[in-house]
Amino acid sequence: MAESARLANEAHMDGLSGLAELAGRLFADIAAMSPDARGVSRPAYSAVESRVLDYLEEQARAHGLHCWRDAGANLVIGRSDDLQPEAEAGYFGSHVDSVPEGGNFDGLAGVVAALLTLIALEREGVKTRLPLRAWALRGEESAWYGQAYMGSLALFGRLDAHSLATRRRDGKDTLGEAMAAIGLPVEDIASGKPLIDACRVKFFLEAHIEQGPVLVERGWPVAAVTGIRGNIRHRTIECIGEAGHSGAIPRWLRRDAVFAVAELITRMDEHWATIQQHGGDLVLTCGILHTDPAHHAMSRIPGEATFSFEARSQDPSTLLAIQGLLQSECQIISRERKVRFEFDTMVRADPAELDPDMIASILDACRALQLPAETMPSGAGHDAAVFAQAGVRSGMIFIRNRNGSHNPNESMEIDDLMMAVAVMRRVAKELTL
Amino acid sequence: MAESARLANEAHMDGLSGLAELAGRLFADIAAMSPDARGVSRPAYSAVESRVLDYLEEQARAHGLHCWRDAGANLVIGRSDDLQPEAEAGYFGSHVDSVPEGGNFDGLAGVVAALLTLIALEREGVKTRLPLRAWALRGEESAWYGQAYMGSLALFGRLDAHSLATRRRDGKDTLGEAMAAIGLPVEDIASGKPLIDACRVKFFLEAHIEQGPVLVERGWPVAAVTGIRGNIRHRTIECIGEAGHSGAIPRWLRRDAVFAVAELITRMDEHWATIQQHGGDLVLTCGILHTDPAHHAMSRIPGEATFSFEARSQDPSTLLAIQGLLQSECQIISRERKVRFEFDTMVRADPAELDPDMIASILDACRALQLPAETMPSGAGHDAAVFAQAGVRSGMIFIRNRNGSHNPNESMEIDDLMMAVAVMRRVAKELTL
Repeated sequence: MAESARLANEAHMDGLSGLAELAGRLFADIAAMSPDARGVSRPAYSAVESRVLDYLEEQARAHGLHCWRDAGANLVIGRSDDLQPEAEAGYFGSHVDSVPEGGNFDGLAGVVAALLTLIALEREGVKTRLPLRAWALRGEESAWYGQAYMGSLALFGRLDAHSLATRRRDGKDTLGEAMAAIGLPVEDIASGKPLIDACRVKFFLEAHIEQGPVLVERGWPVAAVTGIRGNIRHRTIECIGEAGHSGAIPRWLRRDAVFAVAELITRMDEHWATIQQHGGDLVLTCGILHTDPAHHAMSRIPGEATFSFEARSQDPSTLLAIQGLLQSECQIISRERKVRFEFDTMVRADPAELDPDMIASILDACRALQLPAETMPSGAGHDAAVFAQAGVRSGMIFIRNRNGSHNPNESMEIDDLMMAVAVMRRVAKELTL
Repeated sequence: MAESARLANEAHMDGLSGLAELAGRLFADIAAMSPDARGVSRPAYSAVESRVLDYLEEQARAHGLHCWRDAGANLVIGRSDDLQPEAEAGYFGSHVDSVPEGGNFDGLAGVVAALLTLIALEREGVKTRLPLRAWALRGEESAWYGQAYMGSLALFGRLDAHSLATRRRDGKDTLGEAMAAIGLPVEDIASGKPLIDACRVKFFLEAHIEQGPVLVERGWPVAAVTGIRGNIRHRTIECIGEAGHSGAIPRWLRRDAVFAVAELITRMDEHWATIQQHGGDLVLTCGILHTDPAHHAMSRIPGEATFSFEARSQDPSTLLAIQGLLQSECQIISRERKVRFEFDTMVRADPAELDPDMIASILDACRALQLPAETMPSGAGHDAAVFAQAGVRSGMIFIRNRNGSHNPNESMEIDDLMMAVAVMRRVAKELTL
């Protein structure tokens, strides 16, 4: 156990005894309910997902908590005295579905942390002004129906008919069919009718494993998330030059698509370094890059190269700047290298701002627990972004995790989860008392 | 017709009348003998190739020339008084085979030019001290058996057993079987025994269509070739970084293979520009470049990228310098970007120097014919390089050609061929009188 974790355990784990063991059991039982060839598979809006919610309800009831389903068939867990589902409340939560052959912690960790926090408050007999609830959401992963955040989007009337008509990756059913099968009002959802009153959700705090290596590298058990990066994306940019015999065409007559794309990427990399040196938040990725496999050859000047381009930032103006820089660099390179760039339609996702007061409250709690009080952006999207975009005060806590997410090797220590629970317990009191 | 061509025609085409028409007929007849779905196909050491040699022999005999086959089953055409095949002689020539679905001029143009030159000299009754012969070589194209210059390599005892055992691209036979079928001494060839006495070949001059666009761009009908570029090649260099979620991993923790390869290519491009600014001869090509198609995705930091690397130069020291720069840049980038580069075995082909006196003689002839007297390197390999490496004084003349070579769109004007014949006639006199 890390030094910080031991300190926190000693000083601040009162009232949390036995909960680490409970967490371990919950993770083990739920993993056993969702086996696959590798890792776990909990498809969105599937029977497996429903069974996991039933199991969590059973466990919550065993600890004296009060459970019901919202209009989106998600599980809501309230305190024993929380008898009015329609009342205004604050929520901790995350999603229970996983990607195919995924890890056990992406999503589920935040649900378990929310449940443990409620159990701890219930055990302490803390009375709160505002009810605090745990939300176990369905359908966050895009791997199944091509659409992410289905559960939270449906709640806010933002799931479109196209997504409802999309067939699952294995062809089993469409999202609309899967939702109808568990009793959801698919026509209402398709018509954009919200399933809940957003005004009655006073805040949403999502704990989630970090999907990158920053917390591991920095030695932080948890961190407050400052915002969820938006992005601009081109799936396919084609650079078109002219093919030719590599030995027979001199430099001044070349229109080499690979040299052009290499220069473009290198120039964008320089812009990235500059923006970051000035404190900007940005990551750039060209995940796909290839010459034409039907025609490329070692001694053929590549007449074409295709690549993807993605920029992510918390700051809309940084995304706008990158968009402009990409265009202007392509123009310069086109002129110099006698190539042209053909762009597909750019897809854009806006950044989501997380609530500054909630961030401050998370950092205060970290300090009080003698934990590093640190912040970082989230590069990946989360349900919390949907809540924030719906006008709900939203926050996120990242929990240290090795080996990334969406794979069977996700590795979160239960000790780190308990740090998050300790933080969440303090934040809960500050927000609800 | 271009201005230069008309001038030359007027002033210096005496004695060549009717030969342009003959050339047109030879090209048309031989194209008709080697049809394919697109363009022409004259496989190395095939019956088609043999028929072309028979046809050329027949045409040469019709013009009073004297023909025989050398020990490599290539066609040799001598003057009417050239009755001693074993005598020392000078040769003009090129190859008659083509790539699959290729053009009609790559190779054949040089054979036709050599034949026309002999016909012109015969017609003029020029007596030469040294016999001048035309050589119609077999088997130059690597497309059939994976080995280039088979015909000339066999003559000099340099065709290895591995090549002889290689099967044709369509599985028809091995090179050894194809050679044996036309009576070649395959065991002698395999044992490295030369088929001819190189000392009796006093010079070899190869006319060939330019395979690039330089003559077209510059407006030169012909050019003297200064040398044949050697090359260093890696078919596969792998850059290995680490994959990860594009949103979740910040710049300082990335090990992005695509950004690393882009920087490497851009740095090598800068070295190329510098070397060229200092007068060095160099072309660089990365014809193949790709992320891993099984795993790449728009939002996945590419953990691996694979590319080919080829450098060509007339100067062995430039190739050596590039080899060193490639290694040192890879080391710097590996350190900075936390990636590593894995190289396959480098393949090297030495540059071939062409004879300075022959180059001067070609340039003198151009000047005398009021043609641009220009030089350029050959990026592609040619039989002339094999002759040069065997110690034979060798030269090359490039003939203007549009649309590159090895494709059905090769486009050489007969007028330009006749410029080459006019040059070759003058060079022949200078070298043999």
